[in-house]
Amino acid sequence: MTEGKAIILLHCPDRQGIITDVTGFITRNHGNIVYLDQYVDTIDGHLFMRIEWELKGFFIPREHIKEVVDELFAERYGMVSSIFFSDERPRMAIFVSKQSHCLYDLLARYRAGEWDVDIPCIVSNHEDLRFVADQFGIPFHVWSIAPDKSNRTEVEQAEMDLLHAERISFIVLARYMQVNSDGMIAEYPHHIINIHHSFLPAFVGAKPYHQAYERGVKIIGATSHYVTRELDAGPIIEQDVVRISHKDTPDSLVLKGRDLEKIVLSRAVTKHIERKILTYKNRTVVFG
Amino acid sequence: MTEGKAIILLHCPDRQGIITDVTGFITRNHGNIVYLDQYVDTIDGHLFMRIEWELKGFFIPREHIKEVVDELFAERYGMVSSIFFSDERPRMAIFVSKQSHCLYDLLARYRAGEWDVDIPCIVSNHEDLRFVADQFGIPFHVWSIAPDKSNRTEVEQAEMDLLHAERISFIVLARYMQVNSDGMIAEYPHHIINIHHSFLPAFVGAKPYHQAYERGVKIIGATSHYVTRELDAGPIIEQDVVRISHKDTPDSLVLKGRDLEKIVLSRAVTKHIERKILTYKNRTVVFG
Amino acid sequence: MTEGKAIILLHCPDRQGIITDVTGFITRNHGNIVYLDQYVDTIDGHLFMRIEWELKGFFIPREHIKEVVDELFAERYGMVSSIFFSDERPRMAIFVSKQSHCLYDLLARYRAGEWDVDIPCIVSNHEDLRFVADQFGIPFHVWSIAPDKSNRTEVEQAEMDLLHAERISFIVLARYMQVNSDGMIAEYPHHIINIHHSFLPAFVGAKPYHQAYERGVKIIGATSHYVTRELDAGPIIEQDVVRISHKDTPDSLVLKGRDLEKIVLSRAVTKHIERKILTYKNRTVVFG
Amino acid sequence: MTEGKAIILLHCPDRQGIITDVTGFITRNHGNIVYLDQYVDTIDGHLFMRIEWELKGFFIPREHIKEVVDELFAERYGMVSSIFFSDERPRMAIFVSKQSHCLYDLLARYRAGEWDVDIPCIVSNHEDLRFVADQFGIPFHVWSIAPDKSNRTEVEQAEMDLLHAERISFIVLARYMQVNSDGMIAEYPHHIINIHHSFLPAFVGAKPYHQAYERGVKIIGATSHYVTRELDAGPIIEQDVVRISHKDTPDSLVLKGRDLEKIVLSRAVTKHIERKILTYKNRTVVFG
Repeated sequence: MTEGKAIILLHCPDRQGIITDVTGFITRNHGNIVYLDQYVDTIDGHLFMRIEWELKGFFIPREHIKEVVDELFAERYGMVSSIFFSDERPRMAIFVSKQSHCLYDLLARYRAGEWDVDIPCIVSNHEDLRFVADQFGIPFHVWSIAPDKSNRTEVEQAEMDLLHAERISFIVLARYMQVNSDGMIAEYPHHIINIHHSFLPAFVGAKPYHQAYERGVKIIGATSHYVTRELDAGPIIEQDVVRISHKDTPDSLVLKGRDLEKIVLSRAVTKHIERKILTYKNRTVVFG
Repeated sequence: MTEGKAIILLHCPDRQGIITDVTGFITRNHGNIVYLDQYVDTIDGHLFMRIEWELKGFFIPREHIKEVVDELFAERYGMVSSIFFSDERPRMAIFVSKQSHCLYDLLARYRAGEWDVDIPCIVSNHEDLRFVADQFGIPFHVWSIAPDKSNRTEVEQAEMDLLHAERISFIVLARYMQVNSDGMIAEYPHHIINIHHSFLPAFVGAKPYHQAYERGVKIIGATSHYVTRELDAGPIIEQDVVRISHKDTPDSLVLKGRDLEKIVLSRAVTKHIERKILTYKNRTVVFG
Repeated sequence: MTEGKAIILLHCPDRQGIITDVTGFITRNHGNIVYLDQYVDTIDGHLFMRIEWELKGFFIPREHIKEVVDELFAERYGMVSSIFFSDERPRMAIFVSKQSHCLYDLLARYRAGEWDVDIPCIVSNHEDLRFVADQFGIPFHVWSIAPDKSNRTEVEQAEMDLLHAERISFIVLARYMQVNSDGMIAEYPHHIINIHHSFLPAFVGAKPYHQAYERGVKIIGATSHYVTRELDAGPIIEQDVVRISHKDTPDSLVLKGRDLEKIVLSRAVTKHIERKILTYKNRTVVFG
Repeated sequence: MTEGKAIILLHCPDRQGIITDVTGFITRNHGNIVYLDQYVDTIDGHLFMRIEWELKGFFIPREHIKEVVDELFAERYGMVSSIFFSDERPRMAIFVSKQSHCLYDLLARYRAGEWDVDIPCIVSNHEDLRFVADQFGIPFHVWSIAPDKSNRTEVEQAEMDLLHAERISFIVLARYMQVNSDGMIAEYPHHIINIHHSFLPAFVGAKPYHQAYERGVKIIGATSHYVTRELDAGPIIEQDVVRISHKDTPDSLVLKGRDLEKIVLSRAVTKHIERKILTYKNRTVVFG
């Protein structure tokens, strides 16, 4: 039986000897380290680390690793850590509205086996993209909040019930044009990935391509970030840009932006699935 | 005697036949067109055009061209136009404060003969960069506004006197950390080029690299724009960006940003010297 | 009845008065010009132009336009021209092998209505991607050339028969890992678009990502080009790149490259569908 | 007395426990680690590491560190290592020919104090840029190899004598249009940095911008690399690119390329001065 790999993501105030201690702990218990990346924020004096090691032959049973790590390091170093196992596939929910480009890009990668992930459901506030879910044979759930918001509580509850039933680990908003409920954000802290169609923090809010056109910028961008309660203000995971010119109209910006959006969103999803992102002070550390 | 080339930059509401009319006028008067670029803003229904033709053999004496063009087209088409001659070198003043990277970049190009321009003076509010002006043998003028601003009027007058005396055609702010006087902006409308050390409109104002660090962006930028009375809000000429990561500190952002700033500023200066920029509704049309 | 627009793509040796002549011809016949872009290659003294005008009210019936244009300008200016009509949708065939990323990207755009194009068939030398064609309800044709190439003539004939039967206007090779027949290249000159997974002319031929890894480059690219008889040597339409590092392996380069490939290929297809590409001396003029 | 920092750059076949061993060694001797970056090439099974620690309080005198490290690790792990001290400024020689843009960029950074480096001399095969050296008060040495190459041995000897006399640690070829002697390359292995004006390996050799124009590429690049005996084939340190179009001529490519060349060269010089580059199998590991 192949036992896969364990991944630890940790951060703590930087002190002498932490790297030696942590790597020593793994080596001593016969774990073969296959990846180590660390970063010290010298301004805040804070250490971030990601280590990956083979479980085969590791002395500590996987269900006890987190416990032992915490005993050894949590109090001593003020360390916050998470443990993942390469053979436990995260379960991802996709939320969409009416635009298909990000959804197609996610599902094409999923279908091509690019990601170690399961996608058991797609949620929407509109019927428009049901045909895409059908093409890929993934259940499609539609709940719309009424204009008078009278059914808001029920919709939010139905969504949460689905996420629970499907044991969803993280959520991807693939151009989902509605604000998530506070409850969902609280239950998935830094586990909801959004794509904003501008180079944040420029052009927060609605119609960023129109804003970009009005301002006459020469470059447009897209930003993937974790969702927090403040709109478009969560930790940024990835950004990219494309050069434009005076010849571009709001319509052509929308078209050019789509390619940015899908690539930037998918890069963020990749890093999240690989457990290569740590968040700290509303910023991300993204390991290579 | 070589007579050089004439350049016309024009814009007007788009109507049938304007291109035919204007190119026909030049051809009929035996001007050999060597460059024509035009652009129709289909949203505003507005035409922008740049034509360059050889003066040799042109029927109309250069001092009458503007007059004839206006007679033929100004009223008829609501056309705003400017005429330039390739053998009339623009005269450029550089304003600096304490950072040398943009100044060196401008002067290195000037000294290498990259630009058809004269640089008769450098102005500063600090003594720090006099040595650079001395290296290149260019007069360096220092005027500082006192903390109580008591000498503000005199300083502004002295600056304007210099600009007049040197017959300055346009001004380049090479990391000049002071706001230009309203009088100067009024006298040089869309003829003062600034470099802002962020991807505008993100991070307007002071310390943009620190703002970028705090926000945790993954890309930083620089923006060259024409100065208007509203801070960092004038028409954007050129922007560029560079990818950063969580490893960057405000200090490393400053260093990386310098390379952007000098290249983005110099690209804008190049386009301005070549008379390839038209401004309209706080945006620029920059011809290739 | 709406009559759409006519598009002329032309090139000829540059001479005085051509722009005036051609725009005058359209204006005189009551065509409303809505797009004009031209470019003069001053090294070769050659003019390239693209004009788009509304057919409504145009004096010359669409079926005679080409004839009249040739009569007026072909001999006089040595002009080569093509006429297109916006309401005549080009018919595009896609050739694929085993990788799905470009195919999905093309079909997602097609299904979202991004392009004025019909895609009546997909051709492959393998069965692998039939399921994608099925997802989108497009006929999928598989012909494989035997290892001993004994059936080569029949396969090539079958492909040509399909292209004829479907009245295909141009062909997109979406990571098609086989050389097209000389007959097909001859019948579709500069009408077969390929995506090469490197920044050409670096890394011509097979396994470019492995070549890039071995050479230790810091940037990889992708190149879309028209197919000619010489491998990877046809006119380049579009290129783009992405930064990599020593941390990348051939496998991660392949994954990063996929995003480049699909975007660069789709940009080329967009420009081709919009009839914005002229070829000359194995180079392309791509209008904005 | 401030004692600065020590830097170790090392690589060796990857084995369990190396990181623990090396960091443990430093920590045990009371060295405060302020930077650690490592990378495992999983294809070759090779480990690369860079550690920086404060010398204050370190038990081992600086002149013995290399000896102790080698005793502990060289044979045991097959480790190749170099030790540097932050207070020992490298001494850099610049070689130039006739183009000033890279030279100005290097000297502007040097004069602005961006780099911990000394530049005691500039060498050229032409007199053209003596004025730049004079502007910055740096000795300028000119040796030209005669057309019949009769004085080649003397010239090469004179250059080597200068490098020895000035105790030069590394050499920067700032658009130096002559091949370095085998002796110089042998004495400065991976310590001569060149800037090639193309995106290598595309357009090796002379006139790369003309080659790029002929091939009709849509992007041009520049490449900084260590010089080896094979022309333009040494380990690549840094590359960057800029988008071009059909409107560009060889002349405009040369101008656009200059900005790339100077930035790409200066980035490589920065990394070299910071001792962040390891070379292995003709590739570089460049730490962030």
